[in-house]
Amino acid sequence: MISHHAVRFSSLSKDVVGDLMDRISIAEAAFQLKLKDFEEAANRISNDIIETPLLPFDCPDRKLMLKAECLQELGSFKIRAGANAIEAADEKDLQNGVVTASAGNFGQGVAKAALNRGLPVHVVVPDTAATVKVEALLDLGAKVTSVSFSDWWGVMMTRSTGLDGFFIHPVAELEVIIGNAGIGLEIASKSSDVDVIVVPVGGGGMICGIALAMKALGKTPQIIACEIESSTPLYSAKIQGKPVKVERGNSWIDGIGSTSVLSEMWPLLDVLVDDVIVVSHLEAERALRSLSSKAHLVAEGAGAVALAAAMHPQFFGQKVVAVISGGNIDPKTYGEILNSNYLYDN
Amino acid sequence: MISHHAVRFSSLSKDVVGDLMDRISIAEAAFQLKLKDFEEAANRISNDIIETPLLPFDCPDRKLMLKAECLQELGSFKIRAGANAIEAADEKDLQNGVVTASAGNFGQGVAKAALNRGLPVHVVVPDTAATVKVEALLDLGAKVTSVSFSDWWGVMMTRSTGLDGFFIHPVAELEVIIGNAGIGLEIASKSSDVDVIVVPVGGGGMICGIALAMKALGKTPQIIACEIESSTPLYSAKIQGKPVKVERGNSWIDGIGSTSVLSEMWPLLDVLVDDVIVVSHLEAERALRSLSSKAHLVAEGAGAVALAAAMHPQFFGQKVVAVISGGNIDPKTYGEILNSNYLYDN
Repeated sequence: MISHHAVRFSSLSKDVVGDLMDRISIAEAAFQLKLKDFEEAANRISNDIIETPLLPFDCPDRKLMLKAECLQELGSFKIRAGANAIEAADEKDLQNGVVTASAGNFGQGVAKAALNRGLPVHVVVPDTAATVKVEALLDLGAKVTSVSFSDWWGVMMTRSTGLDGFFIHPVAELEVIIGNAGIGLEIASKSSDVDVIVVPVGGGGMICGIALAMKALGKTPQIIACEIESSTPLYSAKIQGKPVKVERGNSWIDGIGSTSVLSEMWPLLDVLVDDVIVVSHLEAERALRSLSSKAHLVAEGAGAVALAAAMHPQFFGQKVVAVISGGNIDPKTYGEILNSNYLYDN
Repeated sequence: MISHHAVRFSSLSKDVVGDLMDRISIAEAAFQLKLKDFEEAANRISNDIIETPLLPFDCPDRKLMLKAECLQELGSFKIRAGANAIEAADEKDLQNGVVTASAGNFGQGVAKAALNRGLPVHVVVPDTAATVKVEALLDLGAKVTSVSFSDWWGVMMTRSTGLDGFFIHPVAELEVIIGNAGIGLEIASKSSDVDVIVVPVGGGGMICGIALAMKALGKTPQIIACEIESSTPLYSAKIQGKPVKVERGNSWIDGIGSTSVLSEMWPLLDVLVDDVIVVSHLEAERALRSLSSKAHLVAEGAGAVALAAAMHPQFFGQKVVAVISGGNIDPKTYGEILNSNYLYDN
């Protein structure tokens, strides 16, 4: 197993870190991974996760299936990465527990995986984080430290928190990618001849993991990223040939859509992602309702974006998997979207 | 395999049929079933169904798991029974296709299973059936004949429709019970030491199937039925020691709650069901919201009743499975329940 330490760094000034990030290292390391690495990781975390079902979703002009990661215990695929990052660490590095910097699904995943192993966990969150998310972390038994958004982003860029404990980055972490690869292995084990896999992209750790798993299996489905119209960093990077700064508009959809592709992740996303589909809010809302009424799944916005993208005309006649990444959506928002226009969806 | 013809009858006057129903036969036949019968049925219908996951559901004082039958393709466990009843029939009996008398999940299950085999299907529905349900049947390719509620109930009691085709009763049909037994086999294969299984009861075909499968496996979990407060035919029958007529109050919950236990099913329910839990609407609504926010499942009312019952104090410290029977709920009702009181649930 390639150690994450090869791509770890810390305490750099955040002004220069963008250029100094060892972007070649993480990409190079990732491209050298073998099937065995992914399979071993899947075994290591088998007690933390469930093998989510691949559910048929009726669609007249294609064979569509949903990889229902929203059914993971905390409602998100991120338990895979959190658990794998902890499992892959040296025991002595874990003496002071685990530190991460995500207020959302990843933070919960790390906290749950740490709890499963009796390790203390400390999560740095931006003071913009929703109270309900902070409470979920506290309920899981995590310590939480709230900082300004810019300080929090600094942690994301530098990996330096000043806190004791083993730091796990939510995205640009080789073990995160490896943990997510299990989704690809499971898809392939249930359906051997998939033409297209559609994956929502936030940091890119999930789509890279799935794509690398498929490569390791010798499979060549199209790997399609999807983004919401209000924030399209990967779509823009693909056009420009490099990460660029984009607007982040208002949206009820969180978990995807940042202001730029992380430079560490770009070499992977550049090579592994075949195309990016940008989904409108109207499409996403309709997909959210379809997931509820037809698949009986509660999805978060990113998952609805994946279904909406998987229904785009370009996949006519193909065997398509949409990864429904999670189900953690504000209940009020969810109820409102379900209640609007449901009569006009078909 | 015991033939369903042994327990089939027809064309009796509905005034006398209650007493004449060959209730001993169906119960006797069911009690003679062997593990092999259930396993063969599960194999026969393996292309019609998915093996639904058994999902952990966080609950502080017990180990609770959800058997998520709402994830079946049409959103209900009833595809199991519909497919098995068709599979078990003689080929010559199917020459004129299939007839059933359910406007709901069972009708859809039969229609889908027939469609999967290229058989025509004709469904008799009461004129009180919701338009959306009738349209779902038509969309699946079924012929639909609408009759008055009393004529429809007559069909349920006499199995006589005057239509060509092989009649499949939605409940009191040995093959229906055998098809549902697969749920029990799957639960046991995923979790070998379950203490309690909680099952919503409409006609009783599901709980009897699950209970018989457990017996055949040599397992002895408590088999707990659940009903909604507005209609408690099984609870009342258990107290009286025989089927009795009960009120059927208004409820947003359909699929469970009739005005009496079917006399054919009583000998089975009498013996196989250890206890009946009656759930309030308040509990059911809270459970519906929990299924959405914590399990990311869209359940119909009967499924929510099962979770609510599984959380009753009497199962403290036990390993409990709640069968979430289906997910077909009116979207408007669902949205309204999600939007009410969600802040006060915990």
